Amino acid sequence: MTTFVLFGGTGDLAKRKIIPALYSAYVNGRLAASFSFIGAAREALTDEEFRVRVAASIEAYASEDADHSAEKMAAFLALTTYSKINAHEAGDFEQLKQRIHTSETDPTLFYLATGPDIFIPVVEQLSKHGLVEGNARVVVEKPLGRDAQSAKEINQSLRTYLNENQIYRIDHYLGKEMVQNLLALRFANSFLEPLWNRKWIQDVQISISEQVGVESRGDFYDRTGALRDMVQNHLLQLVSIVAMEPPVNANPDAIRDEKVKVLRALHKFTPEEVSKKTVRGQYRAGAVDGKPVIGYQAEPGVPTASRNETFVAIRAEIDNWRWAGVPFYLRTGKRMASRCAEITINFKPIPYSIFGKAQGPLRSNRLVISLQPEESVQLFMKAKEPGEGIRLSDVALNLDFAEASNLRRVESYERLLLDAMHGDLTLFVRDDELSAAWAWIDPIMSAWSNDSEGLKSYIAGSWGPAASSYLLAQHGAAWGEEYVEG
Amino acid sequence: MTTFVLFGGTGDLAKRKIIPALYSAYVNGRLAASFSFIGAAREALTDEEFRVRVAASIEAYASEDADHSAEKMAAFLALTTYSKINAHEAGDFEQLKQRIHTSETDPTLFYLATGPDIFIPVVEQLSKHGLVEGNARVVVEKPLGRDAQSAKEINQSLRTYLNENQIYRIDHYLGKEMVQNLLALRFANSFLEPLWNRKWIQDVQISISEQVGVESRGDFYDRTGALRDMVQNHLLQLVSIVAMEPPVNANPDAIRDEKVKVLRALHKFTPEEVSKKTVRGQYRAGAVDGKPVIGYQAEPGVPTASRNETFVAIRAEIDNWRWAGVPFYLRTGKRMASRCAEITINFKPIPYSIFGKAQGPLRSNRLVISLQPEESVQLFMKAKEPGEGIRLSDVALNLDFAEASNLRRVESYERLLLDAMHGDLTLFVRDDELSAAWAWIDPIMSAWSNDSEGLKSYIAGSWGPAASSYLLAQHGAAWGEEYVEG
Repeated sequence: MTTFVLFGGTGDLAKRKIIPALYSAYVNGRLAASFSFIGAAREALTDEEFRVRVAASIEAYASEDADHSAEKMAAFLALTTYSKINAHEAGDFEQLKQRIHTSETDPTLFYLATGPDIFIPVVEQLSKHGLVEGNARVVVEKPLGRDAQSAKEINQSLRTYLNENQIYRIDHYLGKEMVQNLLALRFANSFLEPLWNRKWIQDVQISISEQVGVESRGDFYDRTGALRDMVQNHLLQLVSIVAMEPPVNANPDAIRDEKVKVLRALHKFTPEEVSKKTVRGQYRAGAVDGKPVIGYQAEPGVPTASRNETFVAIRAEIDNWRWAGVPFYLRTGKRMASRCAEITINFKPIPYSIFGKAQGPLRSNRLVISLQPEESVQLFMKAKEPGEGIRLSDVALNLDFAEASNLRRVESYERLLLDAMHGDLTLFVRDDELSAAWAWIDPIMSAWSNDSEGLKSYIAGSWGPAASSYLLAQHGAAWGEEYVEG
Repeated sequence: MTTFVLFGGTGDLAKRKIIPALYSAYVNGRLAASFSFIGAAREALTDEEFRVRVAASIEAYASEDADHSAEKMAAFLALTTYSKINAHEAGDFEQLKQRIHTSETDPTLFYLATGPDIFIPVVEQLSKHGLVEGNARVVVEKPLGRDAQSAKEINQSLRTYLNENQIYRIDHYLGKEMVQNLLALRFANSFLEPLWNRKWIQDVQISISEQVGVESRGDFYDRTGALRDMVQNHLLQLVSIVAMEPPVNANPDAIRDEKVKVLRALHKFTPEEVSKKTVRGQYRAGAVDGKPVIGYQAEPGVPTASRNETFVAIRAEIDNWRWAGVPFYLRTGKRMASRCAEITINFKPIPYSIFGKAQGPLRSNRLVISLQPEESVQLFMKAKEPGEGIRLSDVALNLDFAEASNLRRVESYERLLLDAMHGDLTLFVRDDELSAAWAWIDPIMSAWSNDSEGLKSYIAGSWGPAASSYLLAQHGAAWGEEYVEG
């Protein structure tokens, strides 16, 4: 019996992401034949009451592709039960244990979709009740710490009760098809490798922009900020996959060995460098998609004089042979002009144009890997326009993944849940990766906390503060949306 | 007054290609405001009789995009006259001269769409009548010679009367948009250059296959053969553009300087090499597109025991630093399985696969530049299929030129006519290019003539003789169509 125990089973993440992903895996026949799903949370609910919530979550959030028939739903709910759990009540865990049939071969997965404060109490209780022996795995969600020190403490505590290979630190960006495809693009193709270095690449831009504000998470977000919420995890994970050396093989630890080398090679900023190479912003009232929205400080749960950042742009550098001197421009923000996550590799301009200057300046070649809203790869190059003479224009070689394959697309949470059930750690973050990421983030946070002037405001619905453009412009670069096409 | 004089004005090439191209240039406003078109041939025709033929040719062959309205047609015919010309009758040229208003600024273009035997008599007469002074240009069609010696003689004779920069040796493959785009792709983009050499390229394949047989040209074709008809000109021109070094600038002579260097660097075959590195074939009866067709020896005008080749495949090599050791596989034939002209750059396989052998062999990356039937660029690479694990599949980054630009596509003859009128020699073949091409072809022809065994037969509608596959297979390579996709 494979058992999936979801702590925080009544929470928002469970409702919107995890339960729908589990259901999708179920209806697509990806779960073990013998499977049970146990929701766990503090609320006192009967199995039936929990099933009603599960059904509602599936109706609202499960992929439209998934079979929503009454039979399938009923069959899934028949595997579903609920266990009231207070993280500090040993008796609750005793009851949970009765419901779990552990075996040497079938895994038990504990998914901690809870606040980080109860990670340790839960794991301690699981350990005390003999639930993390053998084939048990624990999935933990961000945030894993607030800084290097607290992350280290959490890691150490987890490791008191678990082996590292039982700990599945989830970063849902790693579950995106395009992120995994980056590994294939880089290491199953020969044509990128000669280009993939300081000799041919001008800069790398990784941008994750959201249109939403803090939604209902104002209180949490104000204690976290964009740097911790997005840069420390998602953006640095993308950096590590873009920049890594070829791994020895495709095993999880071989890949993670290379990723952590990148994170360790990230140039750590002095306080002076922080003020030059980072930009932080906070949105004020504006309009997103033509709809007026309030400013950050007016959001529910946010203190009216908050100095928390909702936007970050950083000029990172990687101190190694492949990347020395190549800026990695990282950017993320809330209430931005559009929702989009993309990686742009800007190649260097041609060394000399035989076609003269008649063309005016044209952007150099670039490879754009889009993660959302659509997954695609585009290689922009110059071609001759039809007709006499040579007039150049920018054209794109396109790969549309939705078009290229009619295989079912797997949403990132589903993919990661299945990997965890199958014991594949490739797309999960190892302890040393987490430490290395925090080690790079720490100096930025501490410099910011000593600099009350640095926070810029930006209008909701824009691309962030002007300083973000200047960060690139002073080096002759520009964010993708700043180019005027034509 | 710009004057366009078309020798062979009643011939097949004039009817199918040149007149329609001229008309298309006219209706699209590309011709000089003051323009006249004079048809010239041996037949005695009135202007009006010639205009009827011109009108018929336009109706039948001019691009559908061109304005076919009665007004436009009438206006074009009003510019059209006819001059009876016997190449050996000085009086005919005297009459022609009366119709041409030469000037220092406006060019006169003499297009020799005739057999090569009357090139020299015509040019001599033009010269004697003072018609090739100043701004006059002469366009000559293939075949320009039968071998290096005869080509040299033709060149020398032409040069008795003309400067080299008045001679426009046409190769209509150079007028194709994609061929010109090759220059842009290579020299306006940075991402191809690091890949474009022996280190990253496994082989280059250039294949021009026709489905037609010899049509009404059996007699001519039997005296020519595929090597002279296609390889010496079109295929070697494509080789030179694919392989050339960056030119000093985009001026015609700078580009042709680099092209001729490639042709001179082509490794010249010993007779032994000819038998190992070339394959020639002749089609026998078969079926093309499901329709039975007769064999070559049964074609009208072809001797029943002809040993002429209708198919050639060659493993060429370029002896220079960029290309040493990279095979250039050239192939052309009549009555082949499909009509297609394409250049394939096969990149080397990745040095080592971290993904193991579970995938089975997959083709390595390749860049496919299609000239016909459609113009496109495709970069084939491997990507991960959606879903769990890493399963690789071949996908293509596509650039469809018809889609990428809504600018009018210019047919190759129109493009080349306009270039000649504007005095742009870039896409015309210079004398030294012609000589270098013949110098490489000569040893192949002479080895073949001493080897009566070498001609293989192939079934009409196939991809040529089996020896063509073996030519590549012995080096671990294969023609594009031989791969089983999947």
